Amino acid sequence: MLDFIYNTPTKVYFGKDKEKLVGKIISELGYKKIMLQYGKGSIKKSGLYDTVIGSLNDYGIEVVEMGGVEPNPKIEFVRKAIEVAKKEKVEFILAVGGGSVIDSCKYTALGSKAECDVWEFSMGKKTPVEALPVGCILTIAAAGSEMSSSAVITNVELSMKKGCTTELNRCKFAIMNPELTFSLSNYQTACGIVDIMAHTMERYFTVCPPTELTDRISESLLKSVVNAGKVLINNPSDYDARATVMWASSLSHNGLTGCGRENALAVHQLEHALSGEYDEIAHGAGLAVLFPAWARYVYKQNPSRFAQFARRVWDVVEDDDLTASIKGIEEMEKFFKLIKMPLSLREFNVPKTCVDRLACLCTYNKTRTIKSIVTLDYEVIKEIFKSCY
Amino acid sequence: MLDFIYNTPTKVYFGKDKEKLVGKIISELGYKKIMLQYGKGSIKKSGLYDTVIGSLNDYGIEVVEMGGVEPNPKIEFVRKAIEVAKKEKVEFILAVGGGSVIDSCKYTALGSKAECDVWEFSMGKKTPVEALPVGCILTIAAAGSEMSSSAVITNVELSMKKGCTTELNRCKFAIMNPELTFSLSNYQTACGIVDIMAHTMERYFTVCPPTELTDRISESLLKSVVNAGKVLINNPSDYDARATVMWASSLSHNGLTGCGRENALAVHQLEHALSGEYDEIAHGAGLAVLFPAWARYVYKQNPSRFAQFARRVWDVVEDDDLTASIKGIEEMEKFFKLIKMPLSLREFNVPKTCVDRLACLCTYNKTRTIKSIVTLDYEVIKEIFKSCY
Repeated sequence: MLDFIYNTPTKVYFGKDKEKLVGKIISELGYKKIMLQYGKGSIKKSGLYDTVIGSLNDYGIEVVEMGGVEPNPKIEFVRKAIEVAKKEKVEFILAVGGGSVIDSCKYTALGSKAECDVWEFSMGKKTPVEALPVGCILTIAAAGSEMSSSAVITNVELSMKKGCTTELNRCKFAIMNPELTFSLSNYQTACGIVDIMAHTMERYFTVCPPTELTDRISESLLKSVVNAGKVLINNPSDYDARATVMWASSLSHNGLTGCGRENALAVHQLEHALSGEYDEIAHGAGLAVLFPAWARYVYKQNPSRFAQFARRVWDVVEDDDLTASIKGIEEMEKFFKLIKMPLSLREFNVPKTCVDRLACLCTYNKTRTIKSIVTLDYEVIKEIFKSCY
Repeated sequence: MLDFIYNTPTKVYFGKDKEKLVGKIISELGYKKIMLQYGKGSIKKSGLYDTVIGSLNDYGIEVVEMGGVEPNPKIEFVRKAIEVAKKEKVEFILAVGGGSVIDSCKYTALGSKAECDVWEFSMGKKTPVEALPVGCILTIAAAGSEMSSSAVITNVELSMKKGCTTELNRCKFAIMNPELTFSLSNYQTACGIVDIMAHTMERYFTVCPPTELTDRISESLLKSVVNAGKVLINNPSDYDARATVMWASSLSHNGLTGCGRENALAVHQLEHALSGEYDEIAHGAGLAVLFPAWARYVYKQNPSRFAQFARRVWDVVEDDDLTASIKGIEEMEKFFKLIKMPLSLREFNVPKTCVDRLACLCTYNKTRTIKSIVTLDYEVIKEIFKSCY
């Protein structure tokens, strides 16, 4: 087991109606003026907006609103929000939404306490040292941002989607009511499930000394999410299945599944290039195409690991590790297909000629490689993208 | 899945040599004068004491020492420590040891900010509202106190061992170097393993709506700890096995294994009566006797649960739930025997005539019952203790 630091200070309020506590929670933390960010208005249709505002009003909390966060949240929006947050002297930022809204809030929180432009945090040119506190009410189980230390933002001008990881990004609290996800479409649910599985698998497939406990926890998470996914196809309002997916979202990316292991997120980086370039591609859908392709490219370098995955997560019965590995990857693809995820870049209408450009974006124009079981350089990445057709 | 709050603010520094960071960590938290508590001096023999003092000195941290915490820590010691802490105006309390030392520090921390006698917190007569911050360097993997919200203290005068659970009890940080546990005897190691398993199983065997993810995580923990236990019998210096047990200690009792479930600790309460009355009985050894006895008494009320435990944790292959349940309990006993834990109260020289007294202690003289799959009243508890012979 490798050395690690485990830091999960986010207080989770999990269960029915917990969103009604938001005013009380923020008030007890001592904040009186907050910024509220949300997406494109689905929370107004669902009534969640009214509940949140009502609860905040009950505790006399002043609210500065910034609705309209887009999926793959944009740096331009964040810059505007920072300006407002500074001008209005807000003390706290509340995200009501999924990973995009939370990440937008995290960047706003970092920028509100910084002199530099926040994109410099993405580019690693500056390191954030302070941030406004952030809390969230989660409405999509997927990104794990509600407990994670990471945030990802898209710079349209530069065609780049790039994150900033810092302990300052940990939410003070996360309110999670599985019922808030009942209204998600099957497609959104499936994208979330793939994202959660990817967060877990990325850490699972690094090369490390033995970590039996972390392995088994990761396998538990994958098996539970797969079972819940199968339930939700036919019954999107199954509370326990929604709760499983929601809680797995947090645990997949709060550090637990990486304890004692290398924490590379290689496939995520390929996908960020993809959905950074093609805004219409949902992150989870991109991962559903890329993860099996990556796995088929690398499994021969670590067949015992892929065989363990096949046997423990997918109940593959097969003595030979290489054969078991392939069967495990096939089972994963079958499951992605079952929940109606794409398995080829053709399904996105991404032309084959773009493979070059995507590989360039991943490697910042051939100036870096990505750590993985097999180091991913420009040529390897091109091969992986090509195999997605 | 039942509603829950998940709150694990303890920052964990896990790995080799991490104890050397203690001065830096406390200094960065801003504390200049601390109380150091430890046990009966094994940390002086091992050199850990010198390392800790050296690191604290390097950062100019003033240290008030209170060595000599006993196993099953005593309220008298805590009262003295509180007096010293108040007089010396210490700002922080550092525990170097196992659960006993940490619990002693937690009670000292609560008492240092209270007007009343701390025993009133155990008796539920007063609720703590403030505490000094506590941090720890863990040297025994067992109690899970390093991340838990609970602490247990023994009142010799009243023959009572009784805890106080409050979020104030969460350590600010926990330093965990598995190498610090290499020198534990096989008996101490085994007691720790049983305690860790019991923390997990107590929550696992409550009656609740489905919690697949929490179930599987608990099963993962149990299976990993059992495998590590088998390694450690023959090789007490196996780093990965020690690391597994140490990390499992924290996860078994920090809340993770109880997410969405009832959090009764029924068998623990029986054991507290036992080791409260017989100070020479180690908590883990007491649990090894009581857990199978409790399980045999209650399994028929929830055979599907015990059968799941048998199949997933102990690889029992058996279609009939009742038969599988018994086989699972037998496997647990076999494992306890393998790691040289007692399986009968005879092994402690507890006379059969004491069963009455123990049942009275558990039920505070027949004035309460204990929640469990089967409610444990005086008569039931007597039956369970009787079956331990």
